Amino acid sequence: MVRLTMLTPADALDLILRNQAAFPAETCALTQAHGRVLRADIRADRDLPPFNRVTMDGYALRSSAVAAGLRTFRVGAVQAAGMRPADLGSAPDACVEIMTGAMLPAGADCVVPYEETTKLNDAITLNPEYQVAAGQSVHARGSDFAAGALIVAKGCRITAREIAVAASCGCATLSVSRLPKIAVVGTGDELVEVDAIVAPHQVRRSNDYALRAALIAAGYPQVERFHLHDMKHEIEHQVWHILAEFDVVLLTGGVSKGKFDYLPEVLEALGVKKIFHGVAQRPGKPFWFGLGPRQVSVFALPGNPVSAYTCLHRYALPALAHASRQNAVGPRRVRLAETFVFKAPLACLLPVKLTVNDTGDQIAVPRPTNTSGDFSSLVGTDGFVELPADQTEFPAGTIANFWSWA
Amino acid sequence: MVRLTMLTPADALDLILRNQAAFPAETCALTQAHGRVLRADIRADRDLPPFNRVTMDGYALRSSAVAAGLRTFRVGAVQAAGMRPADLGSAPDACVEIMTGAMLPAGADCVVPYEETTKLNDAITLNPEYQVAAGQSVHARGSDFAAGALIVAKGCRITAREIAVAASCGCATLSVSRLPKIAVVGTGDELVEVDAIVAPHQVRRSNDYALRAALIAAGYPQVERFHLHDMKHEIEHQVWHILAEFDVVLLTGGVSKGKFDYLPEVLEALGVKKIFHGVAQRPGKPFWFGLGPRQVSVFALPGNPVSAYTCLHRYALPALAHASRQNAVGPRRVRLAETFVFKAPLACLLPVKLTVNDTGDQIAVPRPTNTSGDFSSLVGTDGFVELPADQTEFPAGTIANFWSWA
Repeated sequence: MVRLTMLTPADALDLILRNQAAFPAETCALTQAHGRVLRADIRADRDLPPFNRVTMDGYALRSSAVAAGLRTFRVGAVQAAGMRPADLGSAPDACVEIMTGAMLPAGADCVVPYEETTKLNDAITLNPEYQVAAGQSVHARGSDFAAGALIVAKGCRITAREIAVAASCGCATLSVSRLPKIAVVGTGDELVEVDAIVAPHQVRRSNDYALRAALIAAGYPQVERFHLHDMKHEIEHQVWHILAEFDVVLLTGGVSKGKFDYLPEVLEALGVKKIFHGVAQRPGKPFWFGLGPRQVSVFALPGNPVSAYTCLHRYALPALAHASRQNAVGPRRVRLAETFVFKAPLACLLPVKLTVNDTGDQIAVPRPTNTSGDFSSLVGTDGFVELPADQTEFPAGTIANFWSWA
Repeated sequence: MVRLTMLTPADALDLILRNQAAFPAETCALTQAHGRVLRADIRADRDLPPFNRVTMDGYALRSSAVAAGLRTFRVGAVQAAGMRPADLGSAPDACVEIMTGAMLPAGADCVVPYEETTKLNDAITLNPEYQVAAGQSVHARGSDFAAGALIVAKGCRITAREIAVAASCGCATLSVSRLPKIAVVGTGDELVEVDAIVAPHQVRRSNDYALRAALIAAGYPQVERFHLHDMKHEIEHQVWHILAEFDVVLLTGGVSKGKFDYLPEVLEALGVKKIFHGVAQRPGKPFWFGLGPRQVSVFALPGNPVSAYTCLHRYALPALAHASRQNAVGPRRVRLAETFVFKAPLACLLPVKLTVNDTGDQIAVPRPTNTSGDFSSLVGTDGFVELPADQTEFPAGTIANFWSWA
């Protein structure tokens, strides 16, 4: 039995989150706010709705007049949405022809839709036995929110709904978290660019493409890609520049026990303080995390594509969300569709495909990767589950925490 | 009992989809491909992995030599990832010090990791009782995919995983669906811009903001917003220009029975062929759909924010996906968390909040909106379920189709 002295994934994430300073807040035009993290509450600037709003096309009148037996009303005015409200006047048989979205005229308390009336010249008659109650077809002022009420709390990632609410409340700009500048740095002499001629012993760069695309999908579009060769001097020189320019640095490769795995040594020499090296997990055991000058977070991920991609989602994306002061969203819980056996005394980060069966239950089908070498094994998966280290057999039906790919 | 002569939502969508011509395919740089719809399969250009790839740092040797009793090996070379493969030579006790990602040297068939060896000068000795099998710590050439094999089928929306696979296979560009130019056109005299001074009887524009943001989130970033007043001449003039310039037009408001609901009439006068007007649903009953010149799809949605937003997701987004030739993804099935009663003989498009309980079951909590007037009622919802028209009570546990907000 191997003694576990390494961190668990949860402990590792905890250490990372404790070292995340908040990204500053900044102001952003409403049309640019989609996907950003909101830093100030959105409150109703007026009652919502701001007035007694008509919800049907028809005639506004007094329900008390109908209750008293009146069936025919004289049409005094036509009021479209956006017009100043008409006045019903004092005659009990007065009504106003009115459109959806208009403000209810003073004196009226309900709207009778066109289809419940017959019109003759300037008068309408209600259909036989038609009854009407006060408030009918009227969305009452303040019935959704009173002026000043909290509608959207800070800390959410802004969607179309929050943008629409902000527009309704007159927010032409919003306070959001500043977007971090992120460097994605691949290392490894075996890697060539996608459009280069590839020798039989070489492979093409893919980690930097994958991490960049996932970061953009997660709401962090300011990503630059770099590639470094396995030469200590080159790595030192380039990483020094990168640390000076970026807020977050993600490196892949160079953190294992190989002869040319210079990264931990180089990072510490450049003043990046190691927080930990190694997590009791597979894939991703050699994961290294440190803090550089200006509190720059440095995630040195293993070079294997599945390892790097999984660690991005388990550690770096939650760290970015935390630094953006996004409200924490815990992992979802899903059920394993099949029994899975994992013998190493490590947490298993297992790619899965989610399926919802006909009864609405969500089940996770294991999609173990053949080593962690290739992205091709992740096509068709939705994310990964984490299976704890202290167990080796996970029967079908086991409930596990699930993280979705970005 | 009201007789249903209107289309059901499923029939309406079917009519819309039958009228969607494919957007043309175009070539896109790999770094720009995220979120686009793939129009040509991605196949392995070489075996994957392309060579017998070492997966641990250690020593490459012959497993047969260990089986024959040999425990000490002479280190002949060091081979890093990206180096041309060394040759093991013919001596049974030969080994090569080798790094993760390197190509297995000719003659070797396995790798012994560092931690299972002791090194003395130029020789290593295996730990007592350590055994090794052919293929150990080697990811065999072609074991994931053979050259020419299909890895990603066309019709998917491209994520980080597909980008990484494309990079591995040497695709510097991808064939994707061209992005449609979409016009989002609000109508209504009651609406003012978000930064304008708002009179008590006016409200601020929010539909165009919401629809634009949702379209961008769904992968259609080329969206322009317009606003038209309820004047027939202005509407005619502007819509004429919009029809000439855009591939898809989404209008909100002006399709009900009100006196100033000019849109259906104007659209037909401008040569937009009506496919239908009205769907047996709430919200969204007055929804109008037609085909303009150049097969432009014209979605004239009701002006109520919840109606417009729901119809966007039920009809316009599936139509855009279909025209992009994205593989159809049916709605998910979820269970209602609570009993819901809906008496109108119409399909009910009901906003819900999804929750996954501790056993991994997904349940949908109804969040009925107070009329369909405000986006504030959609904050915190995840999408909507569709409850069929022929039933009025939907007990807790009812299984319903669920559409997620973009």
